[in-house]
Amino acid sequence: MTKIVKCIPNFSVGRDESVIEGLAAIVRGVAGCTLLDYSADASHNRSVFTFVGSPEGVIDAAVALASYAAANIDMTKHSGEHPRMGATDVIPFVPVKNVTMDEAVEISQKVGERIATELGIPVFLYEESATADRRRNLAAVRRGEFEGMAEKMQKAIWQPDFGEAAPHPTAGVTAVGARQPLIAFNVNLSTNNVEIANNIAKALRGSTGGLKYVKGIGLYIEERDMAQVSMNLVNYPVNALYRVVEMIRFEAARYGVSIIGTELIGLAPAKALIDSAEYYLQIENFDFDKQVLENHLL
Amino acid sequence: MTKIVKCIPNFSVGRDESVIEGLAAIVRGVAGCTLLDYSADASHNRSVFTFVGSPEGVIDAAVALASYAAANIDMTKHSGEHPRMGATDVIPFVPVKNVTMDEAVEISQKVGERIATELGIPVFLYEESATADRRRNLAAVRRGEFEGMAEKMQKAIWQPDFGEAAPHPTAGVTAVGARQPLIAFNVNLSTNNVEIANNIAKALRGSTGGLKYVKGIGLYIEERDMAQVSMNLVNYPVNALYRVVEMIRFEAARYGVSIIGTELIGLAPAKALIDSAEYYLQIENFDFDKQVLENHLL
Repeated sequence: MTKIVKCIPNFSVGRDESVIEGLAAIVRGVAGCTLLDYSADASHNRSVFTFVGSPEGVIDAAVALASYAAANIDMTKHSGEHPRMGATDVIPFVPVKNVTMDEAVEISQKVGERIATELGIPVFLYEESATADRRRNLAAVRRGEFEGMAEKMQKAIWQPDFGEAAPHPTAGVTAVGARQPLIAFNVNLSTNNVEIANNIAKALRGSTGGLKYVKGIGLYIEERDMAQVSMNLVNYPVNALYRVVEMIRFEAARYGVSIIGTELIGLAPAKALIDSAEYYLQIENFDFDKQVLENHLL
Repeated sequence: MTKIVKCIPNFSVGRDESVIEGLAAIVRGVAGCTLLDYSADASHNRSVFTFVGSPEGVIDAAVALASYAAANIDMTKHSGEHPRMGATDVIPFVPVKNVTMDEAVEISQKVGERIATELGIPVFLYEESATADRRRNLAAVRRGEFEGMAEKMQKAIWQPDFGEAAPHPTAGVTAVGARQPLIAFNVNLSTNNVEIANNIAKALRGSTGGLKYVKGIGLYIEERDMAQVSMNLVNYPVNALYRVVEMIRFEAARYGVSIIGTELIGLAPAKALIDSAEYYLQIENFDFDKQVLENHLL
């Protein structure tokens, strides 16, 4: 059974084409890895790469990328809109096929250790790999950003998981962790009243007491004169798509508002969609691994 | 892009273990083919193999299987409950990945030609590969069975597509064709009245005026004291799972009956399930090929 892991590293480079292409070339050069996508944002001055591969392949690729980034990105000269603390800012690993979350955590630990020992860059483990609750949330780990890290890491509670308690002078600090795949999902409403979308988002999202693994806000979409609940589902096995849709449906109903459509942004694992088909079609004793043809082909 | 085709040949052997294992060994021995499943039924005296592979792989495997079956199965001594006309009775090809139906038809034509010229067994093309409407339905092609084929093939309208107009003396006649994947799907009702299930099946299935690609009957399931609509969906892109379920729901409602659950028997392509998720979740502009992660891994 082939094991497949996805890696979605973020680098603090979004304007220098040659560095961005250099990073892409590294992934393409690692045996057992396939580069699925990469994109750079100039105002964020940041780039994101998506690749899949064997556990060994993604470990080698992640360390090679961090090494190249450390050699080619100088954080003392970096500015951009997006919060960041390192040349390689964050390396998330997502289990895709025949890989458990525990195995993905192990992968993140190996990568963190190698980045610290081989490159001299301190590493924080975050999300599922976090060694303390306060380190789960990437935003909390990154608070203070590159410029504030030297001071932050003086505190006992912000010692890194690997490496010295001081940022690398030019490459800063890197966060590495395993996480569930994130699904970007929007629900469009039969109203242009963004307050209704905001109220629904508030009832739904974990941060205000709703579903733990749903993040969401209300948006007004000008092109369609329409309000939208815009979400990230960060743990689809627990907070399934169908549950999010049905909750929005009944929350919207109190305003006489209905769902006119939804949007899946980017990629989702087949299982996230098939879980919802299983619910709506009421399939008894469904076995995703055995009953979906493609699972025998991967 | 790797092309994957599924092949599900049926052989007129269900009791002779050594021949059944010999057929399985042939598939396992063809490079680029993976045997997913095989099963034999003694009362039918028939076996079914499921394998996937490249177009070249499944062509070679299918011809090798037909050759082995011709050498090891004697239709003049065959009896069994299931209708049959040849040692290799039927070879369906189903497009799985990066293969169009036209390509699957071409594969069936190549296999038919090789079976006729290399093995001296006449071949009828059926389903999507059929050269006349009356030949689409396998039951119509097979009518008369092995014993009646010599006479049937005298008629101008039943000349084979490849080979001589007379069955092979011991291996008979083989049907080869491309078809959509078949999904076996049952809907369980909140009643034990099989007449209700029969009425619903009648409204739903193509043969009595319902959905063209749905075959179905009502059944009484003793273990659960429950009526069931038992179906084969032979073209899920046209007659989708959600449409079948929602039609059964409204047909059942007139009797005050509801759907208590459904059953997916065996395998279904991810797309068949995801099509229904797309419907129920109301996803706008969904692109199955691009937005399902696993499609980038195959």
